[in-house]
Amino acid sequence: MATPTVSVGDFLSNTNRFQIIESTLREGEQFANAFFDREAKIKIATALSDFGVEYIELTSPAASPQSREDCEAICKLGLKNADNLYNVRCNMEDAKLACDTGVDGVDVVIGTSKQLREHSHGKDMDYIKKTALEVIAYIKSRGVEVRFSSEDSFRSDLVDLLDLYRAVDRAGVNRVGVADTVGCATPRQVYDLVRTLRGVVGCDIETHFHNDTMCAVANAHAALEAGATHIDTSVLGIGERNGITPLGGLLARMIVGSHDYVTSRYKLHKLLALEDLVADHVQINIPFNNPVTGFCAFSHKAGIHSKAILNSPSTYEIIDPADFGMSRYVHFASRLTGWNAIKSRVEQLGLTMTDDQIKEVTQKIKALADIRPLAVDDADAIIRSYHLELQS
Amino acid sequence: MATPTVSVGDFLSNTNRFQIIESTLREGEQFANAFFDREAKIKIATALSDFGVEYIELTSPAASPQSREDCEAICKLGLKNADNLYNVRCNMEDAKLACDTGVDGVDVVIGTSKQLREHSHGKDMDYIKKTALEVIAYIKSRGVEVRFSSEDSFRSDLVDLLDLYRAVDRAGVNRVGVADTVGCATPRQVYDLVRTLRGVVGCDIETHFHNDTMCAVANAHAALEAGATHIDTSVLGIGERNGITPLGGLLARMIVGSHDYVTSRYKLHKLLALEDLVADHVQINIPFNNPVTGFCAFSHKAGIHSKAILNSPSTYEIIDPADFGMSRYVHFASRLTGWNAIKSRVEQLGLTMTDDQIKEVTQKIKALADIRPLAVDDADAIIRSYHLELQS
Repeated sequence: MATPTVSVGDFLSNTNRFQIIESTLREGEQFANAFFDREAKIKIATALSDFGVEYIELTSPAASPQSREDCEAICKLGLKNADNLYNVRCNMEDAKLACDTGVDGVDVVIGTSKQLREHSHGKDMDYIKKTALEVIAYIKSRGVEVRFSSEDSFRSDLVDLLDLYRAVDRAGVNRVGVADTVGCATPRQVYDLVRTLRGVVGCDIETHFHNDTMCAVANAHAALEAGATHIDTSVLGIGERNGITPLGGLLARMIVGSHDYVTSRYKLHKLLALEDLVADHVQINIPFNNPVTGFCAFSHKAGIHSKAILNSPSTYEIIDPADFGMSRYVHFASRLTGWNAIKSRVEQLGLTMTDDQIKEVTQKIKALADIRPLAVDDADAIIRSYHLELQS
Repeated sequence: MATPTVSVGDFLSNTNRFQIIESTLREGEQFANAFFDREAKIKIATALSDFGVEYIELTSPAASPQSREDCEAICKLGLKNADNLYNVRCNMEDAKLACDTGVDGVDVVIGTSKQLREHSHGKDMDYIKKTALEVIAYIKSRGVEVRFSSEDSFRSDLVDLLDLYRAVDRAGVNRVGVADTVGCATPRQVYDLVRTLRGVVGCDIETHFHNDTMCAVANAHAALEAGATHIDTSVLGIGERNGITPLGGLLARMIVGSHDYVTSRYKLHKLLALEDLVADHVQINIPFNNPVTGFCAFSHKAGIHSKAILNSPSTYEIIDPADFGMSRYVHFASRLTGWNAIKSRVEQLGLTMTDDQIKEVTQKIKALADIRPLAVDDADAIIRSYHLELQS
């Protein structure tokens, strides 16, 4: 039913063969409201693995003694579907600690923008490259998967960045990472950087997008079009500030162009329960406008929309709610309603009326809806009372 | 402080000279929870005009008698900053009714995709073109501004669409509109269609993006890069299903690349009050992760982030909260905290400690935060008690 995302064959595009690095237990732990004890971490990790994400990223064991013990406990779960990764600072001490806990892979990260080099760690690019190569060699020597990512990639010097990525690729990393740490990147910038990088490195490319300017999902899509292979997500997008690419939002985006890939790979019917689990733990409400699971994601109200949706859902829905175990709701109790929506409701109520009668009762409902908000049972009452009049 | 949005001169781009068509009182009225009585409409229209949007779009006066009277009441307000527009179906009757109410401009719309032509209005492209030209000629004869938009543009036949747009441009419309009615478009598709259209018509180009796949802000940005001139928004993005490009989200995106244009044109300090006004009327909570005004938009938690933010906010903030009258919050009461955040808090509390003492109390705070969630006053209590010990 959808327009294909890429209508002309595009050999760079990985929109139908991407993998998810789920970071609710790392990036999400940096969310203002997050406090995950071990029980919560185990529940969330298990639910993520059941959902079908390929990787689960955890807070560095170097963050605190409790973090370290939690990491070990989660690694011992032996989750069937997902591999565990740690996100660690680019230094030997953190890398050693990570490898000692039996993790599947280590995600090394260091800031490369002028802003972070000056005000965060104070190191120059030569130092960064030298340290990165040492840390990567060590992690590889331990037989552990390794990713190297720059931080704040989109405010880093392009030439320095490509030089660094080429060096770590030659050193044999499994993935390089591109991170829009401050949420400044636009889809065209993402496409350009990832496409350029695709020509420089042979390894996989992971991408990480913050959502400060609401582009995190679009940027992830643009990255895949340009040849990225892995996308970082968190449940409901929780993370530093207003977070990163949300898992549900990414899948809403990807299912439009890659329906079969997405439905075959992820247990989409479990999305709502997964979001509820995390929302409960961090004490937030699922936003009213959340993709797929928000209360109005599949609500239709204007008369012209309702009529067409009742004829054929593809008219005003690009996502089939049934793919996610959700259902649609066609509003009829409003001044914007049309008689087709009322007709559908009359049929749901098991009443029989002619089209002219339905048009007449629609006018009655619209007249009342002009004066005050109508609840569903208000409109039902009008329909029933009108139907009763018809009988007498 | 930001990387420019377009780093190489781009003659098509209107990212620093766009206008806003604010549709809270049209698209927003189609939101599941919306019921705006006249008093609410007048309050919202006045607040939007004070905020500085260039146009306010209203529900068609043909929707209901009350809608018509409300339209007339709002037109009579004579709002200083914003022009009023109606969104009407493409037929002579609706156009006449609209022109009769003293509106500044009429936005004509008709579905052009196969899906909408078959299941909504049942007309073919020849009929659409003929009717559009009649309606446009009529509205122009009344001396009223006119926009012609296709609906579901991204699932319409490209050649048919360009033929239609060329015809209405030659007929002298003020703007043509491109609408992603079902929320399927990606930024690259938007860029390509708008850039192609830019070469076909001489008039302004308005764009309208639904947010089903979370690309509505990114798509608006891509449209402006490709030469679009006007963006449709609603407050908090409310509209059919999960809505359209939100006003606040668009401005968060645009201020990154076009700081001076955005700050000179819109009263950004009034954004929060405007969102509160609309959220109250439609009974929703502002999403936790809403750009700029969400409770965590400027929250910083991880130790490495907090340290850098305290040194220089540009390290982890691409938007200056002060531009919107907001302030940042650096978390320190968590296991992810660093001693730099604690140092800042110690200073806020007016206490004196050496760096070594601060590092010691940081360890105490992290130890407790490992066991249970810490409120701000918990951490403060630890700091004060440690400070007291130092004195004795």
